[in-house]
Amino acid sequence: MPLTFEQETEQLKQKLLRMAKRAELSVNLAITSLLERDGDLALKVKEEDSILDSFEIEVDDLSIHLLAQAPLASDLRFITIAMKISHDLERVGDEATTIARRSYDLNKEPQLKPYVDIPRMANLALDMLNQAMESFVRGDSETARSIIPRDKDVDALNKQLHRELASFMVESRDNIPRCLNLMVISKSIERIADHATNIAEEVVYLFEGKDIRHMPEFKR
Amino acid sequence: MPLTFEQETEQLKQKLLRMAKRAELSVNLAITSLLERDGDLALKVKEEDSILDSFEIEVDDLSIHLLAQAPLASDLRFITIAMKISHDLERVGDEATTIARRSYDLNKEPQLKPYVDIPRMANLALDMLNQAMESFVRGDSETARSIIPRDKDVDALNKQLHRELASFMVESRDNIPRCLNLMVISKSIERIADHATNIAEEVVYLFEGKDIRHMPEFKR
Repeated sequence: MPLTFEQETEQLKQKLLRMAKRAELSVNLAITSLLERDGDLALKVKEEDSILDSFEIEVDDLSIHLLAQAPLASDLRFITIAMKISHDLERVGDEATTIARRSYDLNKEPQLKPYVDIPRMANLALDMLNQAMESFVRGDSETARSIIPRDKDVDALNKQLHRELASFMVESRDNIPRCLNLMVISKSIERIADHATNIAEEVVYLFEGKDIRHMPEFKR
Repeated sequence: MPLTFEQETEQLKQKLLRMAKRAELSVNLAITSLLERDGDLALKVKEEDSILDSFEIEVDDLSIHLLAQAPLASDLRFITIAMKISHDLERVGDEATTIARRSYDLNKEPQLKPYVDIPRMANLALDMLNQAMESFVRGDSETARSIIPRDKDVDALNKQLHRELASFMVESRDNIPRCLNLMVISKSIERIADHATNIAEEVVYLFEGKDIRHMPEFKR
């Protein structure tokens, strides 16, 4: 028996949730490879990334299939937003790959200093991502709205770490390559928070019908 | 008299073309502000960015409207890809803003060295973007395919410039802040080429029905 439109929509939702979990796993693998100085974990992220790539293609195919039979304008909106969320999740995977690549390089040299801010930033960004996906599944636009201003905290941490790393560079030229790698990692985490924010904005649009993506008061 | 589906589709296409031209203008403004050391031009990019933001919202609205009346699977594909292209163009505008912000900072200090590679990279990236949009309008997937491997050239230039700037940093700590700004600009141009490549891949998918986004032989 072919699935009903509602069943297929539910399938799409579940696929996105599974995709989000895999994206989170990738980021965690990448950060752990940095903290534990474990090159094998860094290599594992590359494999995870191709899983996310396949997820994105599956979500697109399923979405196009659903669009052809979408009865209501609200369905159309739901499906196009599912495609956008899937793209954001795939990009989270790309950032995890960037983090893993830089961790791999960093692990070959002595550690510059204890990593304190990086795991903190990563936790913030992943928590935003989790909450954004929760708000999507529950149709809870209030939670989604509350995620958006948190992006500023991650931005601030990234800027602070950037300044700190720049001063380490000035201190000794030997620090420069490691500092550059850490700057890239910090920026990648900041971008993961951006993707979480995008998803939150899309959830607000989906459930409130209001497009807040480029509104000044929500500008990051 | 209301517009026909075909007329609205044509309107969507034209809107994307105009959006692409504005995105190109933004990048050109940002690069010129760097080369001419002109802070006013850098500020102008910020204004241009909000125009691109509005374009993206308009494209989404028009797309959702069209999806509701799309008769064929190929129409659905066209419309969802129009939305993806619009998102890529909006992101090109974001990169232009990043370039402008860093140019603004750089223009306050003496120039580190003549900028040779940066305008070259920018020309390559913008040419890829132009060709990708051309291939979209003409339905020319062969041209679109030919754009994809060119992304590697821009990546290589970015890496080379990155190495050069890293050695400038080692040479003198006074160079560090300027080198960091130039690294960000170089990376932003590399991302513009990534967006052009995304668009080219979407055009191939649209006209050949083949999803080459994450195929290993096309991996960048």
